[in-house]
Amino acid sequence: MDSVDTLVTARWVVPVEPAGSVLEDHAVAVRGGRVVAVLPAHVARARYEAAEIIERPDHVLLPGLVNAHTHAAMVLLRGRAENLPLGRWLRSTVWPLERRWVDPEYVRDGTALAIAEMLRAGITCFADMHLWPDVVAQTVAASHMRASIGLVVTESATRWAATADEYIDRGMHLRDEYKGDPLIGMHFAPHAPYSTSDATLTRIRRLADELDLPVAMHLHETAYEVEQSLLAHGRRPLARLAQLGLASPQLVAIHMTQVAPEDIDTLAECGASVVHCPESNLKLGAGVCPVARLLGRGVRVALGTDGAASNNDLDLLAEARIAGLLSSGIAATPGDLVAADLLRMATLEGARTLGLGEVTGSLEPGKWADLCCIDLHAARSWPVHDPVTAVVYAASAQQVTDTWVAGRQLLAQGHLRYIDESAVLERAEAWRERLDATAGEEAAADE
Amino acid sequence: MDSVDTLVTARWVVPVEPAGSVLEDHAVAVRGGRVVAVLPAHVARARYEAAEIIERPDHVLLPGLVNAHTHAAMVLLRGRAENLPLGRWLRSTVWPLERRWVDPEYVRDGTALAIAEMLRAGITCFADMHLWPDVVAQTVAASHMRASIGLVVTESATRWAATADEYIDRGMHLRDEYKGDPLIGMHFAPHAPYSTSDATLTRIRRLADELDLPVAMHLHETAYEVEQSLLAHGRRPLARLAQLGLASPQLVAIHMTQVAPEDIDTLAECGASVVHCPESNLKLGAGVCPVARLLGRGVRVALGTDGAASNNDLDLLAEARIAGLLSSGIAATPGDLVAADLLRMATLEGARTLGLGEVTGSLEPGKWADLCCIDLHAARSWPVHDPVTAVVYAASAQQVTDTWVAGRQLLAQGHLRYIDESAVLERAEAWRERLDATAGEEAAADE
Repeated sequence: MDSVDTLVTARWVVPVEPAGSVLEDHAVAVRGGRVVAVLPAHVARARYEAAEIIERPDHVLLPGLVNAHTHAAMVLLRGRAENLPLGRWLRSTVWPLERRWVDPEYVRDGTALAIAEMLRAGITCFADMHLWPDVVAQTVAASHMRASIGLVVTESATRWAATADEYIDRGMHLRDEYKGDPLIGMHFAPHAPYSTSDATLTRIRRLADELDLPVAMHLHETAYEVEQSLLAHGRRPLARLAQLGLASPQLVAIHMTQVAPEDIDTLAECGASVVHCPESNLKLGAGVCPVARLLGRGVRVALGTDGAASNNDLDLLAEARIAGLLSSGIAATPGDLVAADLLRMATLEGARTLGLGEVTGSLEPGKWADLCCIDLHAARSWPVHDPVTAVVYAASAQQVTDTWVAGRQLLAQGHLRYIDESAVLERAEAWRERLDATAGEEAAADE
Repeated sequence: MDSVDTLVTARWVVPVEPAGSVLEDHAVAVRGGRVVAVLPAHVARARYEAAEIIERPDHVLLPGLVNAHTHAAMVLLRGRAENLPLGRWLRSTVWPLERRWVDPEYVRDGTALAIAEMLRAGITCFADMHLWPDVVAQTVAASHMRASIGLVVTESATRWAATADEYIDRGMHLRDEYKGDPLIGMHFAPHAPYSTSDATLTRIRRLADELDLPVAMHLHETAYEVEQSLLAHGRRPLARLAQLGLASPQLVAIHMTQVAPEDIDTLAECGASVVHCPESNLKLGAGVCPVARLLGRGVRVALGTDGAASNNDLDLLAEARIAGLLSSGIAATPGDLVAADLLRMATLEGARTLGLGEVTGSLEPGKWADLCCIDLHAARSWPVHDPVTAVVYAASAQQVTDTWVAGRQLLAQGHLRYIDESAVLERAEAWRERLDATAGEEAAADE
């Protein structure tokens, strides 16, 4: 018998690849942190000598979810900036609070809380965009989670960097530091077209080509952004990026709520990815990304929670559900996006978007064993006529019982093994006290 | 010292009435199943000798949620009828399955599962619409939950009743049986304008006036329904009801995704209530109710989950969240509906819609002690800048720890006290096997 480290058996295994596959009473065999095989449980038991067998008889076992866009540390602002459209939300509340409070300690404490929340929600990999990406990377490393760290760039001076070039230089330094790390990848994260110059975007494009890094940016998030670009540049933001050479398979276009036919042509022709963040887009009154139309043209679409200040949680299953509801009710019609499409967007398409499609996002031999397990034997998700539908439309993130990253079990039957969760919550509470003491000062701090 | 049965203390108490009130470190005192007082915890401890003190230091204590529209027993079809717009969903899948399988045992087993799910989600009262309302009432009574049972009426013969008059007569008999029951109320539930004749609606109106019962019906759920009414009656469905004398404060207009200015005038003038079921409306491609516009004209709006076959859960907090997101992103703009409005719709407005506004829906002395308690000290809802925002936009139904109906604790720290949950889940699994064996026969069964 072959030996493996872990055998996880479940009533249902949904590997995501091949598409549509739902395997009953199957097992995933893990050795050296990687998936060795996905096979019937009784065959697995006969074939493998396992150091550890984990049985989940009422559960569905999935690839870990990939949150393709968030600002992790913003969990500290959860519920702190409500009832405002995006422009005023940023200018009257979020930016003044961040200018005043964001420092390495804030980023560490916020990111740690976000990681706890995401692991509990079955997320094993996230793409981040925040100041102090070095602190984000350190915090991720300490948690054993997987992430693609956004090397944030803007023309605005902050305590992290004074100029766009300094943002880029510090990012390059960080990238060198983590080169070869199996869990921590990097991507460029210019904040948005309106906050980065042509010169900066051109330099990013050159470096991204050279280093083969994704370039993720907020794009066509609001109608106002598109209008301003037409005024300032005579082009829609995506057309401006295309002119600067950034329309490529490396481009990760976050949001895209404003989509004209020529935008779809550009995205389809260049092979860019889109990250759909429906809850944040609705909450900030930004609009709805026409996902089914994009998929119909072969554009890759992944899912993101965005930051918790506009969501207000980091629950990618809920995001998949709302994406499905919006597609059925607003942007397309029922059946254009089925539950299996939504699960694929929440896993494999997210991984591919971040350049990690060979590494994670599906249960295939050779990939890292990034897994999540959901107990469906609960009043809210029972009976199970179809486990993928149950996961997307009925189960809650709090039915996630276990999460593994590269074969290491980070959440075990609801217990976070490498995080002192009560200390994390306590530090968040201390930040809340500081942040709430700022109430009323925001208007004054506004430009 | 006065004696009380129970004192529940919590970090935050949100009584819903007075509107906007958030009380820190308060208690609710309960005697004889009713709220005696809502007051600071330290005052309560000094004033009352309590047989039982329940302390919830990280929790928010709220009135129990009121699910103003569901078809409880449809949980057995959860996930069984996916990816279809309303018309085909009903005709090709739901009605054929129901014609074949729905009987008293199905209704009992489905309703029991729905009750377990709803109590776990903090729901203490629901309005039901299903065949065999007598079985629904028995199942509710056995659970000690509160409900308003819909006395369903349609022109279509079923095993429950052969003619509209027989539906009404059986309903009247049931109503007599439960007269005076403190937990079980009744309302008329004609299925929809297109499935009830003028004569039937006129008889219902006369009885509803005489007995002072609400009349809840699916109304303006789809554009097709409105078009068909114009063809058949020369009037929009609501205008037809008005002509028949049903536009009154007793009218509960469920769905109302298709709303013309004259519809708002009618609703506002007659004092009718609307029940917004956003997840079901999106999932079935029906449309979005313009809640903020209705509220702006003084129309009462409550929230419902609809049945789990089009949702796919009975989670009213999730419904409140989606209602808020849709209002911010689609039907209105951010700030038109704030978290406190959504919580009020999920509690007091639901109770008022069902004629239970003096009985439940807020924490006020003299009302029944229908309560729910939510633990906010969790990674997904922490830190708490504002508890109402946390409840609506971050907490999950699975953070509900305790639920009381008329002072009786039905859910205690996550344990259902009067329901054998594993038996309920087991019976649901047996129904799933039967229902899934029907696969493929549906098209043949269709008219």
